Amino acid sequence: MTYSKKPLIGIIMGSGSDSRIMKGAAEIFDKFKIKHEDQIISAHRTPSRLAEYAQHAEKMGFKVIIAGAGGAAHLPGMMASHTIIPVIGVPILVYNDKHPKKTDTAKFSAFGGLDSLLSITEMPSGSPVVSVGVNKAGNAGIYAMKILANEFPELKKKLKQHKSDQHQSVLKESEQLKKEGLSKFTEKKFK
Amino acid sequence: MTYSKKPLIGIIMGSGSDSRIMKGAAEIFDKFKIKHEDQIISAHRTPSRLAEYAQHAEKMGFKVIIAGAGGAAHLPGMMASHTIIPVIGVPILVYNDKHPKKTDTAKFSAFGGLDSLLSITEMPSGSPVVSVGVNKAGNAGIYAMKILANEFPELKKKLKQHKSDQHQSVLKESEQLKKEGLSKFTEKKFK
Amino acid sequence: MTYSKKPLIGIIMGSGSDSRIMKGAAEIFDKFKIKHEDQIISAHRTPSRLAEYAQHAEKMGFKVIIAGAGGAAHLPGMMASHTIIPVIGVPILVYNDKHPKKTDTAKFSAFGGLDSLLSITEMPSGSPVVSVGVNKAGNAGIYAMKILANEFPELKKKLKQHKSDQHQSVLKESEQLKKEGLSKFTEKKFK
Amino acid sequence: MTYSKKPLIGIIMGSGSDSRIMKGAAEIFDKFKIKHEDQIISAHRTPSRLAEYAQHAEKMGFKVIIAGAGGAAHLPGMMASHTIIPVIGVPILVYNDKHPKKTDTAKFSAFGGLDSLLSITEMPSGSPVVSVGVNKAGNAGIYAMKILANEFPELKKKLKQHKSDQHQSVLKESEQLKKEGLSKFTEKKFK
Amino acid sequence: MTYSKKPLIGIIMGSGSDSRIMKGAAEIFDKFKIKHEDQIISAHRTPSRLAEYAQHAEKMGFKVIIAGAGGAAHLPGMMASHTIIPVIGVPILVYNDKHPKKTDTAKFSAFGGLDSLLSITEMPSGSPVVSVGVNKAGNAGIYAMKILANEFPELKKKLKQHKSDQHQSVLKESEQLKKEGLSKFTEKKFK
Amino acid sequence: MTYSKKPLIGIIMGSGSDSRIMKGAAEIFDKFKIKHEDQIISAHRTPSRLAEYAQHAEKMGFKVIIAGAGGAAHLPGMMASHTIIPVIGVPILVYNDKHPKKTDTAKFSAFGGLDSLLSITEMPSGSPVVSVGVNKAGNAGIYAMKILANEFPELKKKLKQHKSDQHQSVLKESEQLKKEGLSKFTEKKFK
Amino acid sequence: MTYSKKPLIGIIMGSGSDSRIMKGAAEIFDKFKIKHEDQIISAHRTPSRLAEYAQHAEKMGFKVIIAGAGGAAHLPGMMASHTIIPVIGVPILVYNDKHPKKTDTAKFSAFGGLDSLLSITEMPSGSPVVSVGVNKAGNAGIYAMKILANEFPELKKKLKQHKSDQHQSVLKESEQLKKEGLSKFTEKKFK
Amino acid sequence: MTYSKKPLIGIIMGSGSDSRIMKGAAEIFDKFKIKHEDQIISAHRTPSRLAEYAQHAEKMGFKVIIAGAGGAAHLPGMMASHTIIPVIGVPILVYNDKHPKKTDTAKFSAFGGLDSLLSITEMPSGSPVVSVGVNKAGNAGIYAMKILANEFPELKKKLKQHKSDQHQSVLKESEQLKKEGLSKFTEKKFK
Repeated sequence: MTYSKKPLIGIIMGSGSDSRIMKGAAEIFDKFKIKHEDQIISAHRTPSRLAEYAQHAEKMGFKVIIAGAGGAAHLPGMMASHTIIPVIGVPILVYNDKHPKKTDTAKFSAFGGLDSLLSITEMPSGSPVVSVGVNKAGNAGIYAMKILANEFPELKKKLKQHKSDQHQSVLKESEQLKKEGLSKFTEKKFK
Repeated sequence: MTYSKKPLIGIIMGSGSDSRIMKGAAEIFDKFKIKHEDQIISAHRTPSRLAEYAQHAEKMGFKVIIAGAGGAAHLPGMMASHTIIPVIGVPILVYNDKHPKKTDTAKFSAFGGLDSLLSITEMPSGSPVVSVGVNKAGNAGIYAMKILANEFPELKKKLKQHKSDQHQSVLKESEQLKKEGLSKFTEKKFK
Repeated sequence: MTYSKKPLIGIIMGSGSDSRIMKGAAEIFDKFKIKHEDQIISAHRTPSRLAEYAQHAEKMGFKVIIAGAGGAAHLPGMMASHTIIPVIGVPILVYNDKHPKKTDTAKFSAFGGLDSLLSITEMPSGSPVVSVGVNKAGNAGIYAMKILANEFPELKKKLKQHKSDQHQSVLKESEQLKKEGLSKFTEKKFK
Repeated sequence: MTYSKKPLIGIIMGSGSDSRIMKGAAEIFDKFKIKHEDQIISAHRTPSRLAEYAQHAEKMGFKVIIAGAGGAAHLPGMMASHTIIPVIGVPILVYNDKHPKKTDTAKFSAFGGLDSLLSITEMPSGSPVVSVGVNKAGNAGIYAMKILANEFPELKKKLKQHKSDQHQSVLKESEQLKKEGLSKFTEKKFK
Repeated sequence: MTYSKKPLIGIIMGSGSDSRIMKGAAEIFDKFKIKHEDQIISAHRTPSRLAEYAQHAEKMGFKVIIAGAGGAAHLPGMMASHTIIPVIGVPILVYNDKHPKKTDTAKFSAFGGLDSLLSITEMPSGSPVVSVGVNKAGNAGIYAMKILANEFPELKKKLKQHKSDQHQSVLKESEQLKKEGLSKFTEKKFK
Repeated sequence: MTYSKKPLIGIIMGSGSDSRIMKGAAEIFDKFKIKHEDQIISAHRTPSRLAEYAQHAEKMGFKVIIAGAGGAAHLPGMMASHTIIPVIGVPILVYNDKHPKKTDTAKFSAFGGLDSLLSITEMPSGSPVVSVGVNKAGNAGIYAMKILANEFPELKKKLKQHKSDQHQSVLKESEQLKKEGLSKFTEKKFK
Repeated sequence: MTYSKKPLIGIIMGSGSDSRIMKGAAEIFDKFKIKHEDQIISAHRTPSRLAEYAQHAEKMGFKVIIAGAGGAAHLPGMMASHTIIPVIGVPILVYNDKHPKKTDTAKFSAFGGLDSLLSITEMPSGSPVVSVGVNKAGNAGIYAMKILANEFPELKKKLKQHKSDQHQSVLKESEQLKKEGLSKFTEKKFK
Repeated sequence: MTYSKKPLIGIIMGSGSDSRIMKGAAEIFDKFKIKHEDQIISAHRTPSRLAEYAQHAEKMGFKVIIAGAGGAAHLPGMMASHTIIPVIGVPILVYNDKHPKKTDTAKFSAFGGLDSLLSITEMPSGSPVVSVGVNKAGNAGIYAMKILANEFPELKKKLKQHKSDQHQSVLKESEQLKKEGLSKFTEKKFK
């Protein structure tokens, strides 16, 4: 089943290295068979693209924009200032694969994502962005599904099934834990 | 113009004293002529109403639920766990009118709203809530309008007009500031 | 009805000025007709009384000790180190009635209660204290009732009634809000 | 010696991965020969189980519920809202075994457990939960023993023995340190 | 003496209410007889003016732009992204004159300026903004003078005089304190 | 009794407005009849006086320097870098008497004293400063007395008396509280 | 092309281990062919060198001083107090290569750079330092270029080219992402 | 040269694992040939030893007590409450050698040492403890030397030599950096 021939969702992120986190949203849409378009828009390195992308997004008919950014995460708020399409912000915190060594410049996030979270939520009155938790791109994806479900009622059933699957999965693991007890359960799970 | 005879939005809050903040959302809907239903649902004092309200909300056809709560703000997340309707959380920080005096028990918020913000956003994978900034109920209102506009295109025009009004209003004040300079402008504005 | 001729609960606090907060616990016990004994024990100004009080508490047969303290709140943890009676800590944050004026030394809490909360909870393995929220002495009182109810089953009924009263009270206010809407409700409530 | 044929303690946690931390509580009960029942209850993925479990816990006669959860840790507070059995919360902070690599989505806790601690303690008046320190499941276990000792006096002796053992163990290590001095002691301990 | 017929400095701020803080910068320039142009540019309410202002600033020949903003303070970073003129950010924290009362929506800053400070400094590599301390618009003014002094050497003398005046003023007050002692000095100063 | 004809203690502070806090230290010395010399030394506005004062302090034979400063509190650390006399830092947090009004520039401390505390304690290895709590100038005074008591054994007796007086004072208030109970005690204390 | 035979920029840092971070600034100047002089000036271990360096810097004609420091980062503020040359502070956060092991003393930064950031920005009125983000020495370098460009207009063109290169580089990566989609793009980028 | 046949300094710590950090203080005393006695005193696991140790310390004639503790670091404050000997607190933050793996309970510090720092400094008026920075046991050692130097003037010369050595060592490294430039210097230092 296809909901639309054109993408319904625009996923944008501040840099290519954010793709590790943002693919969590893409995986949700791929699973639910929702087309999405993915781009890198840097509020700071490509500021002129903010307005261009907003026009593009409206022309494309995107229903939701998911915008991920780290550090002083201006991208979600700036995009929301250019369009009336609802923007979901994803604060991104990436630790470096390479710890600072030898002559490499040390690069790591100093504020645990709090800088990005507040840069996304604390918008002035009249200019709303909403945020999911730090690095919770998958949750942004599911939230976008909830918005889409207002227009595509068949998605409601799928979302309910998703909820029910989660419930069953927890239930099953709980029964195993109840039967085995914490010591044995933990030993098996983390062996 | 009416978009619906029944309310499209459910506004809920953890306690009656949160109404001071949450009316900021109601004012947006009243301005845009969107019907909303307002209730107090306490995740902790009326836990059995969480599931009841979720069923009520789906039966009523709410498109968005706006949930405000302070302290350990569980309401938005718990409501989102009971329904597939998108929930927008509003972290609430209320200072007491009465400062702690004499024999009155001192009551005030200790963590500046950070406790509420993180209680709303840091949901586990699979259970999304989104949050606006602390006390930004009005922004939750406008965000809900953006979601509704996907289905009610005439709202798009209104939202663009709202953006344009904001732009003009800032522009006008900026011109006054440019003409008068900071000293004179400030003196007049805050006299 | 009396549960005991002797007090079942010991309430202690680090200084006399904490009594404004700690009376929140006393009010719960007074309401539930549970005898309690109230003392000031300063971990820092009367350290020799820590061990004395612990012996006194065991001899008196206290079932729970509620210990409130601000700043570097050592009292709950130190008392828990001297006795096997369960200790409930209350982090206390008191703003001064008198703001720093003229030649008075400014005195106010600098860390919003976080210092006290962490001083209470972050005990080493083997030496537990538990904490309620900042200034939530009333909650410490209700929690103590829950512990007592294990031994005094008639308290269970009272606690359930208390829960039910809370539920009804929220329900009633919610119905008023639903009927009046946020604008009118807020205006009446905060006029 | 058995205190009860049925479990006296219910241990619950928000997800199976929390079992690594929560087994710290189970180990205390196993050592003291207190039966406990272990389950996974997710406030967000299995919300309908909150009320069910509360009824189950009361029917089983649990004296204490220990509830561990990470992130926006709603489980302890929500469970406390459904029952009058005392609930001890354990804020959980788990770093991932696998650091974010290559195409894996980075998953780690951003707020050092502060989000979970405040989500547990900052409950509204009337709905108490208490918290131990971050990841201190063992301390929750010992605290539960202190509560049980009110009803099972033979536990008092065991708890005093536990305290005395701790004292002796520190004393012995201190004498070694005093004799060897810091340099030699450290070298031997951490070689 | 005039350094330039046209303004050398552009002062911008996110909203008219920031003028209370930003006039601290204007006062420095007025004292040093440096022409400045003051405008309100809202990154969120007038996003299209960001690029316009940047072009205007370069055409005007501004040597420094001072940009003040509160909350999710995107203005300094976004302006820096549009121009090569050095931008000095001023994180703004304004408490409301009117405390939340009755039916008024409570409006206050929740994060003590930390949100604004980090929104300004934590820019990605390649897009620098610098920040002074929270509300330190006057310091931004003096810093701008230091930059100008590279080109206008006569300003160097004035800045040195300013430093020397500060030194003398502290010295004089210190001598008074030394002579009177803390008790008498404080009594006189704060009577 | 006089311990010395010349002052034994140097009290310094970053600005005259800090005198409100720092007089707390002076009051201790006045009570214990220890001569002290009070000066304003601004690390930033009178940097050349840092080395001068250090020489003066050594020539005067000061046994301890107490240094109070707010904001980026560099004074204690810089003074400690210039002398081997032990320096006790006092992080200062002063709220303004005048809340920001009308055209007045808003001035208040944004970080609750944490900025000053960390600026004092987090010195590099080899350059120690020690800190008391925020605004605890009186505690710095008593700590200095403890250092002096190593050389002036008669001070030991006085310090023990001071401890004993504190003990008695708490004991007396505790007995009153125990007799009256929390409700009556609080009512009387805060009426 | 050479802008000057003598260095235009002084780079200073609190310790040799900061060089790993500060070389980020040097690389910018090397790329833009701007001469710089690099020194270690410890505010705490070589306090007498602060004034000496300030005189040296003015004699050398430095246009900007870039000062990096970690912990209680006093160096930028103290240097700014000694000279009217603009100082850009770089808060430094270095994790140790060697994690605390065996008998080695554990050495790591405890406050995520917040201590250093606030030690740099929260200067008193009249004594400005500006700060870039934590470890953003490269951004300090580019900011210094922006200051220099006021005097050396040919640098303007280079800075614009730098901006344009950044823009193109993001654009190119975005097109790749758009074409491949998040899953494939991430897999290739992080394989 | 010996200053005393008996130890002048008592070093105490909350647990044996703190010895890794506290040996930093011992190394200073060993270098300066000052005798010290090292013990483990746990405020929570050996509370009765607090008073005993205080008496021992006074009988031994200790001039300074250095007390290190992590988490809810009560040891320094509690020891200071039992004696008039000056106590220097060392907040301890130890990361585990073993990261949480498999079935091991995860154990790590959640609050970056802030919990310990505030537990040490935020003592009530009248009960002073002073703190050095997190894990800065070596600085506590040097600070103790400064206190001792008041009574043992020959230590003054040694401390000045220590300062001078630091100065020379920085100077030498700075000259190397100045000569080689940042790129080459860093490459050599961290190769």
